[in-house]
Amino acid sequence: MTNGHVTLVGGGPGEWDLITVRGLRALEAADVILTDHLGPTNQLDQFLDLTGKEVIDVAKLPYKKQVAQERINELLVTHAQDGQCVVRLKGGDPYVFGRGFEELQACAAAGVPCSVVPGVTSATSVPAAAGVPVTQRGVTHSFTVVSGHLAPGDPRSLVDWDALGRVGGTIVVIMGVRQVRPITRALIDAGLPPSTPSTVIQDGETADQRQFRAALGDLADVMEQEGVTNPAVYVIGEVAGLEVLG
Amino acid sequence: MTNGHVTLVGGGPGEWDLITVRGLRALEAADVILTDHLGPTNQLDQFLDLTGKEVIDVAKLPYKKQVAQERINELLVTHAQDGQCVVRLKGGDPYVFGRGFEELQACAAAGVPCSVVPGVTSATSVPAAAGVPVTQRGVTHSFTVVSGHLAPGDPRSLVDWDALGRVGGTIVVIMGVRQVRPITRALIDAGLPPSTPSTVIQDGETADQRQFRAALGDLADVMEQEGVTNPAVYVIGEVAGLEVLG
Repeated sequence: MTNGHVTLVGGGPGEWDLITVRGLRALEAADVILTDHLGPTNQLDQFLDLTGKEVIDVAKLPYKKQVAQERINELLVTHAQDGQCVVRLKGGDPYVFGRGFEELQACAAAGVPCSVVPGVTSATSVPAAAGVPVTQRGVTHSFTVVSGHLAPGDPRSLVDWDALGRVGGTIVVIMGVRQVRPITRALIDAGLPPSTPSTVIQDGETADQRQFRAALGDLADVMEQEGVTNPAVYVIGEVAGLEVLG
Repeated sequence: MTNGHVTLVGGGPGEWDLITVRGLRALEAADVILTDHLGPTNQLDQFLDLTGKEVIDVAKLPYKKQVAQERINELLVTHAQDGQCVVRLKGGDPYVFGRGFEELQACAAAGVPCSVVPGVTSATSVPAAAGVPVTQRGVTHSFTVVSGHLAPGDPRSLVDWDALGRVGGTIVVIMGVRQVRPITRALIDAGLPPSTPSTVIQDGETADQRQFRAALGDLADVMEQEGVTNPAVYVIGEVAGLEVLG
């Protein structure tokens, strides 16, 4: 054991000042910062004095995805074992599709102290930036955040899209650009009216933010016509149709 | 129109330094702060110089819940119309069961500019503080945050609990202490094994935090035996059974 330790910091959805005060303090105290290309990491030098700090861009690791995660875990552990104060800066929240718990487990397995600073998740804040609240009193009592990286019916999928379409609440799909057509079809097959409001937001919480409203049955066409690409989030449900002047 | 405006700020789950940097800056610039008893509001004077600021505790408004919200809306609008910089500080995130969009709509209807600063929601950060990630690679591809204030089958409920039990992802129940028994029964009737891991956290992200793990079929008994009271969150799903030393 050394005095080194690891802090996993949720950096929020993009703009640097949506990091928490605790997260910023952790960055200020860090000797080594491991970043990728999510959240506020490309603005690091604009809000932080990097003098004397080592910044490692782990998005540039020349490996396949899974190997890269193992290599990140290894870097976290070895720098901490060298006695350094290590921050792993992640987009959004470390535990919301962020693989943060895997990094915590890797530290624990190596006997390295690791703490977690939560962050503002893109799953709720990107819709908010587009004027869509994931909940509204009298309109919805639940919201589901779901990864759309696998098509409904894919044997690797852990999601019952038919059940999801019947829950009755807001649905927020992340990583679902490629599969938007089978996803929207599955939800309509589950019973959601094709007229259900939806909103897609690309590059949310950045200067490049674009957003489009569409009925659920038209969402795939609209996204194709507008050339929507990742990173994008789409929200399906009555909240996507709310007007500010209600 | 005046120069007054309103900012809705998500204060995060409790400890003051889990507010965002942008939210803190908004508080520092405020003439008037409307708070309640959620989030970091009872620590305001510990992290903010309140000299020259008016702090209004809207949780003390002597009205019924709905009337209180209308009175809050009115206070936001009238102070802004007086030319003041008004912050409405809320626990968690303004749009995650926070009624923030109603306040935005009230401002818009009165012609008062209103912006929203997202916050760290308790729905993900309270489980995290108890060591439970709402997602884990290979374990879950979705999570649902659901209000448990109404029992399954209540005619006012907007949630199909049977469908929710079949989705296959993590379920995070907020405001569900009173209805834990019918909720867990409904999820088991939907097909979730009674052995499904669950964790309940009371007073999360505060010095009084308590947490208990239980199988889904035992959760209501455990919460009753331990005297769990609000505010509490319970998480149901495989993620609630993950060990740090996995």
